[in-house]
Formats: sequence, C-alpha cells, structure tokens
Amino acid sequence: MKLRELGEDRLLTRLLPSLSIRKDVIAAAGDDCAVVPPPRGKNLLLLKTDCVVEKIHFSSTADPAAVGWKAMMRPLSDFAAMSGVPQFALITLIVPAARSTTWVKKLYRGLNKAAAQFDVSIVGGETSNTRGPAAISVSVSGFVEKARWVSRRGGKARDDLFVTGRLGGSQRGKHLRFVARIKESRWLTKNFAIHAMIDLSDGLGADLPRLAHASKAGFKIDMKSLPLSPGAKIDNAISDGEDYELLFAISPRDRNHLQKAWQKKFPKLPLTRIGSFLPPSSFIPHPFPSGFVHFQ
Amino acid sequence: MKLRELGEDRLLTRLLPSLSIRKDVIAAAGDDCAVVPPPRGKNLLLLKTDCVVEKIHFSSTADPAAVGWKAMMRPLSDFAAMSGVPQFALITLIVPAARSTTWVKKLYRGLNKAAAQFDVSIVGGETSNTRGPAAISVSVSGFVEKARWVSRRGGKARDDLFVTGRLGGSQRGKHLRFVARIKESRWLTKNFAIHAMIDLSDGLGADLPRLAHASKAGFKIDMKSLPLSPGAKIDNAISDGEDYELLFAISPRDRNHLQKAWQKKFPKLPLTRIGSFLPPSSFIPHPFPSGFVHFQ
Repeated sequence: MKLRELGEDRLLTRLLPSLSIRKDVIAAAGDDCAVVPPPRGKNLLLLKTDCVVEKIHFSSTADPAAVGWKAMMRPLSDFAAMSGVPQFALITLIVPAARSTTWVKKLYRGLNKAAAQFDVSIVGGETSNTRGPAAISVSVSGFVEKARWVSRRGGKARDDLFVTGRLGGSQRGKHLRFVARIKESRWLTKNFAIHAMIDLSDGLGADLPRLAHASKAGFKIDMKSLPLSPGAKIDNAISDGEDYELLFAISPRDRNHLQKAWQKKFPKLPLTRIGSFLPPSSFIPHPFPSGFVHFQ
Repeated sequence: MKLRELGEDRLLTRLLPSLSIRKDVIAAAGDDCAVVPPPRGKNLLLLKTDCVVEKIHFSSTADPAAVGWKAMMRPLSDFAAMSGVPQFALITLIVPAARSTTWVKKLYRGLNKAAAQFDVSIVGGETSNTRGPAAISVSVSGFVEKARWVSRRGGKARDDLFVTGRLGGSQRGKHLRFVARIKESRWLTKNFAIHAMIDLSDGLGADLPRLAHASKAGFKIDMKSLPLSPGAKIDNAISDGEDYELLFAISPRDRNHLQKAWQKKFPKLPLTRIGSFLPPSSFIPHPFPSGFVHFQ
C-alpha cells in the first residue's frame, strides 16, 4: 500500500502503538504537543535536531530500518558530545506519497530500536508529502547535570587530545550501524574532568579545527598515531567523516589514570591519544584536508 | 552566491549573530546541543516539531521571508492549542546547494521575526543539501503550567464549541501571514476552564472530528453560524485548511461571561459559537467533506 492511499492519521495510528514510551510521558503523539516532565532539580535542558536526506546521507536502496537507526543515532551522538542524557524524540518524516507504507514501518522500526538503546521515547511526529527525495529530521530533548556539561569551549593549551574507537571508512557500513557514544561519555564525565568534547560527524579534519577554534587553542596531531578502521588510511581518518566517535581534551595529568581505567571499563573499544592542544598562536603543523563540509 | 560556494560553517557564522537570543540561554548554535534552563517549579515541558515543504506548503516563488514566518508559526500554533509558552526553537534547513545565500538569509529573517513575536530564541540548527525541493523543519520547546495544560481529550457532552477568527480561503495569503493564537489561548486558560482545544491546521472538517474523537464525544455544528473569511463559503471553511485558528470546548455555563470578556479583550477578533459536543453515540449530523488530509 502507498502512503497516499492510507492518509496521515491512519499511518500514525498504525505506527504509534508499536512505540515504547517511558512511563513518565504525560502526553505523546496524538495531541498537539508532547507533554513531558522537565529535567529535575538543577539539571539543564538539552535540545538537538538533526536530519538525514535521501541521496545525501543514505542511498535510495538502503535498508529503511538502517536509515531510521542512523536518523535517530545522529542527534544522540551530539548528546554524547555534551555528556547529556537523551529522553524524548520527535520525528519529522518527509516522504513521497508514492512510497510504500512498508518502507515507513521499517524506518520507524529502526528509529524505535535506536531510541530504545538509550531509553528514549518517541513522543511525537509530523509527516509531510514531498515531490523529492525522502528526509527524516529527528529532534531530541534531555538533560545534563550542571557539573557534567561539556562544551566545545573549555579546552586548554597542552591538554591531551583523545579519540574513541577507530576512524575512516565509515561508508563501508558503519555510518548506518554506529552506536552513539553516550555510555562512554557519561562514564568519562562521571570519573574525569573533560575540558572540551565533540563528536566526529564531519571527519577529524573538519571537527578538530572546530573544537580548537571554540577552545581558542592551536593543536598538533601525530598522524601516525591515528587509530584506523580496517582498510582505512590516514587520509580516510581525516576526511571521510561519519565516524561518530568522541574527540575530547583532558589535562595530561589525568593521562595514565584515564588510560588504565578506560582499558578496564571498555576493553574492546580503543582510546587513543592523538595529539594535544597548543597555545592559540601555534600553527597547525599539518595542512589538513578539508574534511566533509556540507554544500561543498 | 550559492550555498555550495559558502559552506555550512560560514553560512551559520553569517546567520547566527543576527538572531535575537534570550539572556537565559546557556549555549546556543555553535555547540553540539543547545543548553537552556528547564521549566521552573512544577511546570511541564512541551515539545513540538513541524515542517514546511516546497511545492507542498509553499510555492517556489513565495517570498522566503514569508516561508520562514510560516515555518516558525506552525509549531507555535500547536503551542497555542495546548496553551503553552514557547521558548526555544531549533531549525533544520534542507536546501539544494544551488539555492542562493540571499534566499536562506531572507528565510532566516522570517523565522527570526516570527520567533521574536513570542520571545522565542532560535538556539540551534542544522543544514543539509538535497537534490529535491527545500524543506524547513522547526522544533520548539517551552512550558505550560500543570493547571493550564489543555489537551484534546477533556471535552464533555453538551460543551459549547467556539472558534476564533474566520475560516476558509487561507490560500489567498493568510497561510503565509497568520499569527499563532498564543496570546488568546493564554488569556483563555488564565480566565476560563477550557476543556479541550485544537488548532485548525487541516480544516474544521478534519480537525473537529479529531477533537471529538479524542474527547470521546459526538458533535453538531450549525453550518450557518460558521465565521467565514471574506469571499469564503461554508465548504471553504470546512475543507480549505491552514486557518490556524483555535477550536475549543467549554461549559455552556461560561458562555455569556466568555463572550462578554472576549469582546472586551479582543474587540477586533471574532469568537463564534459554532455548535456543541454531544454524547458519544450521537451521529454527525452533516457528512463532513474530508478536509485536507496529507497524502490524499
């Protein structure tokens, strides 16, 4: 069946009962807004929106469940970058009326599965027809404790720079399967003073300069230290993008303790020191390839 | 200049300083998530997302400032339907790389102007290229007092049904110029017990049955009482959609007091009793035309 034969109300009626909703949600999809409890005590409210677009972020032949997974995990990766706890998601689905309802159901299955990984409730959504490629926008709200919030701005000269996981070659499949590093990020801020953090969505070559710029720092990278995905080369680690790993700055005094504790807590996930921040006047020693910059 | 020549970072760098930001925003665009203060005390958190798509919700020749205005006002209209106070907005902009930066700047001017009407801060955004028509998704967060939250579900048999403003003919221009009925809605819940409310985005013929269904009520409408826009007929009032007026249910005991107080407070805006809720077994006396249903 095509979407145009079903109509929006009936589509949502079919999809919504399948969503797992936290018990603290007061009103979810089916009313004009979602009504949810606010962050408790002195916690701060976090908000993020992100989108995936057909033919840009996923191919038309991609498994719709994987597309849904990716659409949800992208904003969750931004929550990881701030060490936030995601709680509620809203979905905007822009899909041609000729698309099959099966495609949309599978997409929602992926959205829901990714949300469930972190106990996030899908509390509302909107659907629209389009005469072009499909697009899925996901906005997420949640909270972070005042003392654990990590911005891009707090890095200091001589901080160590660490990355989680391996970089490069995401297009071989990882970009549709990655898990936002929320667990790792929450552990980091529970146990260490993280000065600045960002998730690597556009590639180290684009995101590291952003982190450095926000922290008013220079940086140096030991290219040979970069943790490479199987089959990836240094250029891939710098420019491919869509790694969704964490890049963070931390005092070198914490280096030994961090590396030992990490190895014990996450034995399967590499944590690699790739360089350090420098005083702001320092030149970037390697001319970085430009990384993935939208519109270019 | 085209977007593809500018790049996302520089586009945002140019747009963001022009945005008016409330002083209570802790981190806005330029970090991974927006960080904002949560609702105070026992207030509830409200979340809503909505989108406008080129060739569906606006024509390719429409003034981009008007498109931005509409994109922001649509979710704000949902806040009006719940009597909520909107505070923070995130923008997802899906635009072909060949679109001019002037178009995007004008669009943002409209988004910002609409947000400023209700002291809403644009605290973040995401842009993506697309190979199809442009789409703008806006998600808004805010709050509502526990005692003033109005859902679609609280209507009772024999409640009066009122609509604000005039219905029909929105395509002649109102759909790009309307102001969300937040001021009116906040006044209503400050002074009266509103049982159920919805904003008329898809037309009375689609939205009234939704309100009745959620409230488990039947309804009757006096077609001759419908407040018509200049040049509109009854069918337009039922089926055109995009009126963005409020439809609400209130005890008939409040009728006289409401009508007098409204006339004094909003002398230029009609408030019209168009019918009433009935016990759930009642038939719908007029077979409604279907209204505007997406995908059909």
